[in-house]
Amino acid sequence: MAASGCRGLFLSAFDYKTEKYVIAENKKVGVLYRLVQLAIIGYLIGWVFLTKKGYQETEESIQSSVMTKLKGVSLTNTTNLGIHLWGPEDYVIPPQGEKVFFIITNFIETPNQMLGYCAESKKVPNGHCRENADCPAGETVVAGHGIKSGYCLKRDRNSTGTCEIYGWCPLNACFVLPREPLLRSTENFTVYIKNFIRFPRFEFSKSNVLDTADDRYLKNCLYDRTEHPYCPIFRLGDLVSWAGHSFRDMAVAGGSIGILIEWNCDLDKGYDNCHPHYSFTRLDMSSAANSVTSGYNFRYARYYKNAADQTYRILFKVYGIRFDILVHGKAGKFNIIPTLINIGSGLALMGAGAFFCDLVLLYLMKKSTFYREKKFESAKNDKSSVRKMIEDKGSEIQIQEDGS
Amino acid sequence: MAASGCRGLFLSAFDYKTEKYVIAENKKVGVLYRLVQLAIIGYLIGWVFLTKKGYQETEESIQSSVMTKLKGVSLTNTTNLGIHLWGPEDYVIPPQGEKVFFIITNFIETPNQMLGYCAESKKVPNGHCRENADCPAGETVVAGHGIKSGYCLKRDRNSTGTCEIYGWCPLNACFVLPREPLLRSTENFTVYIKNFIRFPRFEFSKSNVLDTADDRYLKNCLYDRTEHPYCPIFRLGDLVSWAGHSFRDMAVAGGSIGILIEWNCDLDKGYDNCHPHYSFTRLDMSSAANSVTSGYNFRYARYYKNAADQTYRILFKVYGIRFDILVHGKAGKFNIIPTLINIGSGLALMGAGAFFCDLVLLYLMKKSTFYREKKFESAKNDKSSVRKMIEDKGSEIQIQEDGS
Amino acid sequence: MAASGCRGLFLSAFDYKTEKYVIAENKKVGVLYRLVQLAIIGYLIGWVFLTKKGYQETEESIQSSVMTKLKGVSLTNTTNLGIHLWGPEDYVIPPQGEKVFFIITNFIETPNQMLGYCAESKKVPNGHCRENADCPAGETVVAGHGIKSGYCLKRDRNSTGTCEIYGWCPLNACFVLPREPLLRSTENFTVYIKNFIRFPRFEFSKSNVLDTADDRYLKNCLYDRTEHPYCPIFRLGDLVSWAGHSFRDMAVAGGSIGILIEWNCDLDKGYDNCHPHYSFTRLDMSSAANSVTSGYNFRYARYYKNAADQTYRILFKVYGIRFDILVHGKAGKFNIIPTLINIGSGLALMGAGAFFCDLVLLYLMKKSTFYREKKFESAKNDKSSVRKMIEDKGSEIQIQEDGS
Repeated sequence: MAASGCRGLFLSAFDYKTEKYVIAENKKVGVLYRLVQLAIIGYLIGWVFLTKKGYQETEESIQSSVMTKLKGVSLTNTTNLGIHLWGPEDYVIPPQGEKVFFIITNFIETPNQMLGYCAESKKVPNGHCRENADCPAGETVVAGHGIKSGYCLKRDRNSTGTCEIYGWCPLNACFVLPREPLLRSTENFTVYIKNFIRFPRFEFSKSNVLDTADDRYLKNCLYDRTEHPYCPIFRLGDLVSWAGHSFRDMAVAGGSIGILIEWNCDLDKGYDNCHPHYSFTRLDMSSAANSVTSGYNFRYARYYKNAADQTYRILFKVYGIRFDILVHGKAGKFNIIPTLINIGSGLALMGAGAFFCDLVLLYLMKKSTFYREKKFESAKNDKSSVRKMIEDKGSEIQIQEDGS
Repeated sequence: MAASGCRGLFLSAFDYKTEKYVIAENKKVGVLYRLVQLAIIGYLIGWVFLTKKGYQETEESIQSSVMTKLKGVSLTNTTNLGIHLWGPEDYVIPPQGEKVFFIITNFIETPNQMLGYCAESKKVPNGHCRENADCPAGETVVAGHGIKSGYCLKRDRNSTGTCEIYGWCPLNACFVLPREPLLRSTENFTVYIKNFIRFPRFEFSKSNVLDTADDRYLKNCLYDRTEHPYCPIFRLGDLVSWAGHSFRDMAVAGGSIGILIEWNCDLDKGYDNCHPHYSFTRLDMSSAANSVTSGYNFRYARYYKNAADQTYRILFKVYGIRFDILVHGKAGKFNIIPTLINIGSGLALMGAGAFFCDLVLLYLMKKSTFYREKKFESAKNDKSSVRKMIEDKGSEIQIQEDGS
Repeated sequence: MAASGCRGLFLSAFDYKTEKYVIAENKKVGVLYRLVQLAIIGYLIGWVFLTKKGYQETEESIQSSVMTKLKGVSLTNTTNLGIHLWGPEDYVIPPQGEKVFFIITNFIETPNQMLGYCAESKKVPNGHCRENADCPAGETVVAGHGIKSGYCLKRDRNSTGTCEIYGWCPLNACFVLPREPLLRSTENFTVYIKNFIRFPRFEFSKSNVLDTADDRYLKNCLYDRTEHPYCPIFRLGDLVSWAGHSFRDMAVAGGSIGILIEWNCDLDKGYDNCHPHYSFTRLDMSSAANSVTSGYNFRYARYYKNAADQTYRILFKVYGIRFDILVHGKAGKFNIIPTLINIGSGLALMGAGAFFCDLVLLYLMKKSTFYREKKFESAKNDKSSVRKMIEDKGSEIQIQEDGS
């Protein structure tokens, strides 16, 4: 008996149980529910799957390696250097072709500096003095060029002077930044950008230099948004103007330009449909252009020794444009998990739609009391409820008798 | 007939079908189900939406461009260099203001090295020898300073010596690292950090230098966690102490400090509520501080030519602190897809709750057999089942008769 | 009366309402539904949770700081430099141990260049001329070495010559790249890579240098995929050969190698189970190996002053291998939100399965009309529908009579 009961239980597990539905022949709610269904299906197919590619697993952490190479020479004629030729080995810092590179467009040169004593620049507030006590020996001049020696140097007894300092003398403070960039021809220089990317999750890698491009094309082409969108060679002046600025203005005091390379790859469409997209922006400008945040310069020195084995140096304060190549991208590929998560959540929303339509049917319709009674079947088994049930039956039988 | 059938089918598609429910007047399970519903709604609203902002699409791949500028000068007094002044052009490597920069805090200088023959350092295990055969000519000294010339140099016949090498002589091996950092005033130097970020998906970009800040503020402020949280100028000593270490200790043998800039932007709240948050950590310490992994140094050389056109060089082995600016962040913005996915999955969990309460009702309650019969309506149409149905009906009629 | 009505409404809110099911004793559909349920549960547990770790929140934006240090010396013997010893301070560019570093393996040296006039190289197409008019004074030679002086230098009257330029003379164009890499011993040099990573969301950080490793191990070990997978010291020749190329071939004209460090951390398994995994790839090769995109070289110059205070320089065109350390990774940790999203969407799919089985039951089975009638209860309350209901009852009673 127990065994047959178990067997029955096992067999009944394979009975299909299906939810019982009540057909409410209410066209208003019916149409409403169909509209809700249509909206959810439309959202799911149109927006989630077609527009947002919800059937794809996406990878946003891109690996990127960038190499750059500049071409162009420029001639400058200054008092100190004389006629001087600048090649990429001089005006690109660092010279080895990094993803962040700086192009010298303007400079102030201070030749033949040697360690010694001289007056601090008048531009440094902390270096001003009225007497020797204002210049305590050994103290550093804040934002200045050296260490105070203890003397205050001034023209006459009553004037304000500057502290004497120990440092690289003479200072470069008296020189004025040329209004016209000294290396103005940098505007026409070109940069060749080689970008190798990889999406580690999909083990997909690609380069911005197309395989099909022949040597001659790569030697002569110049990037253009519409004509040559896949040529990896850019004119510096174009880069700045595409970012919405004037190269000549920017070259005077320097600045920073971002070259954004975007890889938006649909890997379901294959290797050849994954292309870089370039855009350009200025990185050092705040919306309210203030002088502290814009501009770009730094100092570097070349050291020499003279016949007496003394060290002297040439100090360059260089102004220029820093190019920062920022690579980002995402790749998508069909994956079952996001697909099913999206379908599942869409189906769950159908349930929410049914719940909403139920509310309308059961509380807002004219015959809602009737629908409520039909939808919710009572399961009380005490006397009174049974009696009610029978009364219901009785009335049904009454109707039956009337109808027959 | 077929046409009217089709029309009927079409019309019936707009009949609203609603699930039939059985009301089990069981307060225990009813309360349980309401609790389950409350828990799910609470989790959905409280945790998913309010705490985790599940209604937002998030972007974690941040684009970042960093520029740095150091200020400060330091004086050193060593036997070889004499009194020497170090400016940013000397102690910052590389000088052009990268996101990774190295500050020299200590150094060992080996002046006037020329290519020639000398004895390998005793510190290099591979350079030890007892006889000339231990120094095969042309072989490189592993982890050493040059190429073996074939001779073993030793004080007397029985002692152990070192191989003669061809290299830059004299070697710097005999010099001892100063216990007190030579450029100890670097502790008070300041670094100005300019960070431009961009969230490509939302086309949102911002800088850590606030627009509202006036020039004077930026020239004089100093970052402080509570007083000046948005000032982009940092004292080097503070950076190290905030990372939990002593600048003076770290300056002797060098180290590496990470400056973490975190951008956690809720773009629904607008542009002005997206601020950087700075934190600091040491990057070269393992939990068990061992001497191999901590410390930071490297060599660089300055090349000169003497009157006889011979090349000589000054070798600097520099110790110092490497600062690595690591930018990360995420941005969130309202998006319908994650919102609906979260709502959908919450609704689906409601179904799971109902399933659980059903189990309680149908198998754990006293009157569970009655509820089972009410919930599951049989749909067998073979003879025996029909008979059972009629018997059920009969008993119902019996009840009816009793009740009437 | 109203109060008691409210109270009744309130109490009825705690009545448990459960869906009414119809048991269709159809084993075919029953088995089908169980199979669908099994498939969904299998997919959820086996694929989503066990394989894809769907119960985890994942973080893919890794913060990484890399330091490198090279060891090894190499001897070269060239006409200009003579016997020259190269240490890391010379052959690593930049020398400070960045995540992208370049190793010189071959070079062309042009000594004693001074600014002056000489003939442009014949290799530069833009420098060719037939008469002085082809060389307008002041114009830059495209992809050349200087500025045209206005003269065309040619051997005799009818031949083609090259323009005279003002630049750093003599040019290096006549030198040929050595077929055998001059610094061939770089193959045996080692690089020590220190990588510190951090997952900001989980505040988890780790280094690739293991804590347990003692000093001696780190001084002597060499990375090997199977023997020493956690040793952070790599032989350069191995790096290239693991990337599938020959170091000697690559060393001639240069190239670029990516060292990929992958951190795949299951943070539920604890700190010790998070290890780096190294892999190696070539970054500058397109599938069709063309000469423009592969190879890596750049120029740098060392500046000197002679006794007459004239500047001269040594120009190095260096060829070598650029190593780019690319770190990526993801961390996963248990989180309730993705867990519940996955469970929820799985449950919603169950609903889809039930819908599919309903279709089979209601439209494809033999007795589908019967099942349809059972599943869908009509809720019309107009006369005709009631009559139909009663007729159904009548037929049932008929059956009852037959059966009794």
